Amino acid sequence: MPYVNIKITREGATREQKQALIEGATRLLVDVLGKNPNTTVVVIEEVDTDNWGVGGESITVRRARGD
Amino acid sequence: MPYVNIKITREGATREQKQALIEGATRLLVDVLGKNPNTTVVVIEEVDTDNWGVGGESITVRRARGD
Amino acid sequence: MPYVNIKITREGATREQKQALIEGATRLLVDVLGKNPNTTVVVIEEVDTDNWGVGGESITVRRARGD
Amino acid sequence: MPYVNIKITREGATREQKQALIEGATRLLVDVLGKNPNTTVVVIEEVDTDNWGVGGESITVRRARGD
Amino acid sequence: MPYVNIKITREGATREQKQALIEGATRLLVDVLGKNPNTTVVVIEEVDTDNWGVGGESITVRRARGD
Amino acid sequence: MPYVNIKITREGATREQKQALIEGATRLLVDVLGKNPNTTVVVIEEVDTDNWGVGGESITVRRARGD
Repeated sequence: MPYVNIKITREGATREQKQALIEGATRLLVDVLGKNPNTTVVVIEEVDTDNWGVGGESITVRRARGD
Repeated sequence: MPYVNIKITREGATREQKQALIEGATRLLVDVLGKNPNTTVVVIEEVDTDNWGVGGESITVRRARGD
Repeated sequence: MPYVNIKITREGATREQKQALIEGATRLLVDVLGKNPNTTVVVIEEVDTDNWGVGGESITVRRARGD
Repeated sequence: MPYVNIKITREGATREQKQALIEGATRLLVDVLGKNPNTTVVVIEEVDTDNWGVGGESITVRRARGD
Repeated sequence: MPYVNIKITREGATREQKQALIEGATRLLVDVLGKNPNTTVVVIEEVDTDNWGVGGESITVRRARGD
Repeated sequence: MPYVNIKITREGATREQKQALIEGATRLLVDVLGKNPNTTVVVIEEVDTDNWGVGGESITVRRARGD
């Protein structure tokens, strides 16, 4: 019955990539802890680059600088 | 001072339904634990069906199959 | 497939009270949005009063003052 | 390596205000706990006023009443 | 810079299993989205079985029944 | 009515440091967005170093190596 929350910046992840994240995270819980995949929930949250910061700067600013 | 976070798939919940969730969750904390409703916070997050998975599949895929 | 996270201060909620929160939150999602109870997940997190603040003060401090 | 999640109602916070939140939260973790700013992550989530409740009412309703 | 939060019931996951979850989740973000592993954060939260519910019942109750 | 969640590794933060985090985060929301401090909630979560990973390794492993 695990719950996995994946937060990423909103930068164009495709439906296929999200499906791959859901599959991969579910398999990980099955493989490592023997969890039941049917009750494993994965929620992906996409966050604007203005709203995500690291090192005291937003990702928008870092991307503009070429980081 | 409880904090309740309700995550649901984004599938057209109305303003009235959200208000009912807020009221009901607040009353639950008051009734069960005697919490002060004025400091009980409820936050509803709606998540795209592409971004929610269970059983290793997104809800988009499951809905398309008729689940 | 909703996911409900309830955060409360750790102040002695009993197993029966937690069961009542789980039941009540699940029924709320069923009643308001017609969700399937079998895939509705409720997670309760208890937080030390030192670690919860409101109005710029921890709950420990507020309780000591009689709030 | 701290992770800070700030949830606010979606009411027009500007890019500059979000940058100030990211900077300020990062500095707080550095000043209080000596954390490394380069691995301090801040994520801001903006929530519709229909989806945020306090006192059993949505912020939309409270704003309409002038609260 | 992704952030992955894995919630599981507290039922004896070992340090090695947690390390496997951290490695696997990090690799997943690298493989699927090309994320930098050095800024990928994984946080595992273990929740008492009294505090986790599904189908309106705590996991404690379900385990006692043999589910 | 903001809600701030601060996750840090459990490595001995004192009550005074937690109080400083609560005060500082509350003041930040007041200063930057003009929020009401009396309804600003701060929740600090401390996570075991086995349960926190970055770069595919737990903090326990990184600390042992001297990082």
